[in-house]
This record gives sequence, C-alpha cells and structure tokens, in this order.
Amino acid sequence: MPGFSTLLTPDEARERFRRAYTPRPRGTERVGLAEAFGRVLARDVVAPEDLPEFDRSTVDGYAVRAAETSGASGEHPSTLTIVGEVEMGAPAPRPIGPGETLRIPTGGMLPPGADAVVMLEDVEAGNGPSVVVRRPVRPGDNVIRRAEDVSRGEVALRQGVRLRPQDVGLLAAIGAVEVEVFLRPRVAVLATGDEIVAPDRRPAAGQVRDVNTVALSALVQQEGGIPQPYGIVEDEYGALLRTLADARRACDLVLVSGGSSVGEKDAVARAIADLGRPGVIVHGIRIKPGKPTILAVVDGTPVIGLPGHPVSGMVIFDAFVRDVLRGLAGRAPARPLGRTVRARMARRVPSAGVREDHIRVFLEERDGAPWAIPVLGKSGIITTMTRADGVVIVPLGQDHVAEGAEVDVRLFEAS
Amino acid sequence: MPGFSTLLTPDEARERFRRAYTPRPRGTERVGLAEAFGRVLARDVVAPEDLPEFDRSTVDGYAVRAAETSGASGEHPSTLTIVGEVEMGAPAPRPIGPGETLRIPTGGMLPPGADAVVMLEDVEAGNGPSVVVRRPVRPGDNVIRRAEDVSRGEVALRQGVRLRPQDVGLLAAIGAVEVEVFLRPRVAVLATGDEIVAPDRRPAAGQVRDVNTVALSALVQQEGGIPQPYGIVEDEYGALLRTLADARRACDLVLVSGGSSVGEKDAVARAIADLGRPGVIVHGIRIKPGKPTILAVVDGTPVIGLPGHPVSGMVIFDAFVRDVLRGLAGRAPARPLGRTVRARMARRVPSAGVREDHIRVFLEERDGAPWAIPVLGKSGIITTMTRADGVVIVPLGQDHVAEGAEVDVRLFEAS
Repeated sequence: MPGFSTLLTPDEARERFRRAYTPRPRGTERVGLAEAFGRVLARDVVAPEDLPEFDRSTVDGYAVRAAETSGASGEHPSTLTIVGEVEMGAPAPRPIGPGETLRIPTGGMLPPGADAVVMLEDVEAGNGPSVVVRRPVRPGDNVIRRAEDVSRGEVALRQGVRLRPQDVGLLAAIGAVEVEVFLRPRVAVLATGDEIVAPDRRPAAGQVRDVNTVALSALVQQEGGIPQPYGIVEDEYGALLRTLADARRACDLVLVSGGSSVGEKDAVARAIADLGRPGVIVHGIRIKPGKPTILAVVDGTPVIGLPGHPVSGMVIFDAFVRDVLRGLAGRAPARPLGRTVRARMARRVPSAGVREDHIRVFLEERDGAPWAIPVLGKSGIITTMTRADGVVIVPLGQDHVAEGAEVDVRLFEAS
Repeated sequence: MPGFSTLLTPDEARERFRRAYTPRPRGTERVGLAEAFGRVLARDVVAPEDLPEFDRSTVDGYAVRAAETSGASGEHPSTLTIVGEVEMGAPAPRPIGPGETLRIPTGGMLPPGADAVVMLEDVEAGNGPSVVVRRPVRPGDNVIRRAEDVSRGEVALRQGVRLRPQDVGLLAAIGAVEVEVFLRPRVAVLATGDEIVAPDRRPAAGQVRDVNTVALSALVQQEGGIPQPYGIVEDEYGALLRTLADARRACDLVLVSGGSSVGEKDAVARAIADLGRPGVIVHGIRIKPGKPTILAVVDGTPVIGLPGHPVSGMVIFDAFVRDVLRGLAGRAPARPLGRTVRARMARRVPSAGVREDHIRVFLEERDGAPWAIPVLGKSGIITTMTRADGVVIVPLGQDHVAEGAEVDVRLFEAS
C-alpha cells in the first residue's frame, strides 16, 4: 500500500517494538496504607510475623480437646466442665486439662491444651458449670491456627501487584503500614490536526472537537498513569517538533493522536523521526481500526502516534499502549482471563480479513447465556464505543464471524 | 439457631431491606470534562447539535458521485477530472459537477455533489489533472454522514451512567464541557472489637490488627464513594451509640464491622437498634461467610453491620453493600454480565447447603478454556481473598459443586 512500505501484523509490530524498547518504572516512593490502594508494589512484601500469631476460634463456643468429643452424639453426649472464659483481645486465662472447657468468643485466643472449638449451637447447658457436647469435632475444627494465613518470612504480596481492596487489607493485617510502590508513569497526551478545536469551542465548517485528549487521558488514569495534557498542537513540523521534544523530556510516554495518516502532511511522522534515536520502529499495522499507527522510541522514551479517529485511538490504546503503560507502572504482565467473557455472536459479521479486526459489541443475556451483539459503524463513530461493553478481536485472515460462533469478548474496564 | 430468630435467605434479606429503604443520591454538582471521568451522570445529556455537523471522509482519497464509478474496474476504469482539494478543517472549496472530483483527506468535509470517497489505493494518476478510478464505490462508502454518530436533540448519554473513557470522549465531541453529576456518597467506616488494634500497633496476645477499615474504605472508593474512616470504636454500648450517631448524621451510609455476632456482647446490634427508627430490618442471613450481618435504617440512613472477619466483610460488601452504594451514587442497576466469567470448577467443592456459599477461586487457562481453582480456607484467612480472582456463588440447598461443573465466576474489580 502506498506510503506504508512495511505494514506489519499486530504481533510483528509488538515483537519489533519489544526488541527496541522495554518499559520500566522510573523509580519508587513510599506511601502509607491509606494511599496504597491502586498503587503497584515495587518489592515483595514479606510478613514480619505470623498471621495470626495465635490459634483463634472462628465461632462462638467452647474450646475443647477434640479427642474428648469423639463419641459425642445425641444419645451419647460428652460432658465437660466449664473452668472459665476467654475474653476478646486477651490471652487465654488458663490452659484446659482433661474433661475441661473454656467458653470462647469468635476471634478469641485458644487456650493451651485445646485444639478445637465446639459451636454454641452444638452444646446444651449441663448440671452446674458444665456443658453437654452433642456433636464431635476434629482437631482444628472451628480454629484458625497460628500462621495459617501467612507465616513469618513468607512473601505476602508480590512485586508488580496493583493493590486491590483485599491486598491493602492484607498489608494492614501484617502491619505493613508503609510500602514501597512504583512512581506513577507520566503520560503526555497531544492532539494534532488542522480540523481539531478544543471541546469548549464551536467548530466552524469542516472542524470537529478534540475527543482524544479527554478519552486518552481517562484511559491513562484507568491504568494508573498521570495524564499530562499538552492540548492541541498545530499540524506543522516546527511546532510539533518543539512540543514533542518538551513532552518527551517531561514524561515517561508520549501519546500523539492524529496526523499520522500518509495522506496528511505527515508532519507527525517526520517530527517523531527527527526527534532522536532510534526513532520510528513501526509505521502502519494490519489492524482495523488503527492502521496508521506509529510506534517509536526516542532516547529511551516511547512515543506513540495514534490515529485521529477517536475509536481507532481507543482500539490502539488497548492493543499497543496499555501493555507499555503497564510496564512503565511496574505491573506484572496481564493475565488473559481477567477481562474476557465467552459469548456467542448474535449475527454474522464480515471482517477485514487482511487486517486484525476489532469489533465493538455489547452483551445481552438470552436464555441464561451471554450473546455478543455487534455495534456496527465506522471507526469515526464514537457511539460505537459508548454503546459497547467490549471488543471481539477477529484474527488476520478470517473474513467473517458466523452467527452463533463462540467468541471471546474483551471487556472495557468499568471506569 | 439460637439468637438469630429469623435467619433469612439472601433474597429475603434483600427484599425486606428494599421495602424499608431505597437508596438515592443526596444531590448533584456540576463538574468540568477533566473531572468527569468516573462520575455518574445526574441527567440525560442531549446533543445540542449533530455529530458530525457535515459529511466527512473516513479515508484519504477522492470525493466522487458514486454513480460515476459504478462500472469502474481494472479493465473499464472511470476517469474523473481533479478540480481542487479539500483542506483539513476548512469548508469544501467548491461543489463537484459531473465527471469531477476533489482530492480529500481523512476527516475532510465532503463537497456538495459528492456522496462517496474513493480510497487513494484504488486510483491511479490520469493524464493531466485527472484520476483513474479502478474500483467502484457505492453512495456513503468511506463517508460518515452528518448526524450519523448523534443527531441534534438525541440523548447521547443517559442519567445513571458512570462515565468511562469513551463516554467522556463523547461528551467532548458534543461540546458538553460541564455536566451535572451526582455527589459522591460519603460512607462512614467504623471497626469495633476488643481484640482489634490499629495496623501501626504491635498486637498483644489475643489481639489482631484492624483489616476492615482499610479494605472496606478501598471498596468504597472503587464504587465511587468517599470513605470516612472513624477508626476503632470500643466495643461498649455508650461509645458505640455516640460514634454511630455522629457517623449517621455526617454520612450517607454507615458501615460498622465486628461485634455483630450473637456470642459477643452484642453492643453493636443494641446500639444500632437504639439509634432511631425503624432500626434493625435484618439480623442474620443464610450466607457463608457472613451470617451475623445486620441491615438497618435509621432516619433514612442505611446502617450496615458487617462481620468482623475480613473475608466475611468483603463478601457481605459484595452481596449487600455494593448495590446500596450504587443506588446512593445514582447509578443504574448493575448488568449481570459485566463481571462474570464462565468457567469449569477444577475440583469438587463441598458447600454449606443451608447457606448461600461464596467460594473464592482463581482462574487458570487449561487447553484454552477457563477453569476455576477453589482457594479453600476459612473466612478468617485473608489470603483466600488475595489469592483469588473472584467468587463462585453456590445457591442455598446445593451441598457441593462437582468437579468439571460449569460455574459463573464473579470477578473482583481490578483496583
């Protein structure tokens, strides 16, 4: 195809770019627990002590030696003498000996000598200070043993984890009230194009508003980066070169949308090429939408040229930018299953064949099974994205998806 | 069961609570585009104008009357006279007449008279200022028509949408640079329990650190709420009543963890009951983990008592708190398909039978299909959550899940 001398497949493009560039976080910082949610661990977190540090009851009941309840049943109950009570948050007041029990609350510390807890529901009051056990327990029943959750010296959470609610919970549990996390990547977001005006302006004939700055900035935030909007840059070589050079010095990743199509003045491609070494690695990819994509590296900083059409820009973000950003954030590689729903395609969809086709779909439940309904429309139609729940990727060389075919829907992140 | 006089099923509990209380946002505010990502629209957004406002080319090529290319092929090409060029961001310089064409860039405005665009790849240079079309186009080919994305007066985005990147992109496209969104719900997070110490303290014998404040606060953030941590409250009626009353006045939802088990002093249940009308609606649910849950309403504010075990607290958040929070945030009801992966259970798992069982699993791909591996462990074991990708809900009355059985895995949010 004219202008795109080497139109690579998506895998070839990724591989060529990977050989030229490996994303790495630019540093770390220490944050407190309250700020840790959503951040990425820069080192393994090792438990400094056992969790829990003592055998704990998981129910309200009576601490026992399990062996002494082994024959207990409705007809042959075991009777144990109550010799005291465990208080919450306090050491057990005394050990238990043969035939003895201590009342214990949920979360209470098991007394020495006990190896299980009989639930309140499975006992009856006996004569005097005693209790009748109607159901046997085995050693460990209704007990969390010392270190059963995490052992001292064990890795509780691994480097590269983006901390979820349960992960910050675990940090709290082991007293890791400050953790080392990777710095959030700074991502420059530039829009170019002579037809583009800021969203607060009324477009004149032939003009449209800038969609990419706000959409790409939100995608960057979603991945834990800090968007740095550079606004709309004139589609002129000198202006572009200056702004790109500023952005590259200030940020860890530069995203520039628009102006990368061969038919345009191609100022973006030339400016990126002249920015520094090694420069443009990939220009043009067999993907739909998003063919005129540029992947470049300039003095160690990735510079990615995305198509001006907003939908293409978002597809390319997903297909190429997201992994770079994950790497810059220090995250472990994405697991394939996290965001994918298996569904059936609701109707036949023709596909590009010579290009990997990213088809927007929404999901609908029919008879309890998920179906993918294609949201058809050109890549300039933004509502094909706003009406969709995710994307079905049709591989190169396949010219359609049959009605009823099983497909994997890659879901958009929630928000 | 002793103490839990009415142990409701999860559906009964939800229904009873729904009759007593309907969550509603407490108000709205106006935010700019840059702050709109992740917020919830308080009204439908109506497009004030067509998007786009003119017919646009989606490719680099030549604007034509499609009819004049209808017979074009390699053997019978159509020749058109180039009468000018459309500039990006400018009105088309002139209409085209019979036999005429204008060069047009991707995104350029179609001239009057043209109804399609021939791609650059499908033409050859002719003699003089002319072009030879080798492939016919139909009306509308390679064109986005005026209003094809959104028509003036059409609802572009609906009230209740939590804005995703593509949604803020659409707002930018139609010039909605300020939008009315619901106020974020303020959520009080209290922890009680005589055994609980702050995460920065070294627990003494019988004590454990507070996990719930940080984990529940992160869950609240994830759902778009503002957590207001009230710290650890002494498990004593007077102190609890005062703090709960303060929290209820200041917040839209009160979450109090711990102290709701019958075997404990039950100060939480009593304090909630004495806080105001109508008080406790549900106490005790057939769910595992999480049985000793309290759902209450006090003078129009929901007050939810969660079990002290962190895993139980997170399960109850998911099963009961999340929907309340979505309602307070003004979001439309969750769609069932969004966060669910169909998988096969990797091994037989016994289930509670008399209680709805929430089994933590992680996902693994085997021969291209997703399998759910159960993460077994008691609900006091926090690492059952940190090692998991989501939860399989086993309904009441089912006492196991067979090896290889198809299950729906409800994924945890990313972070």
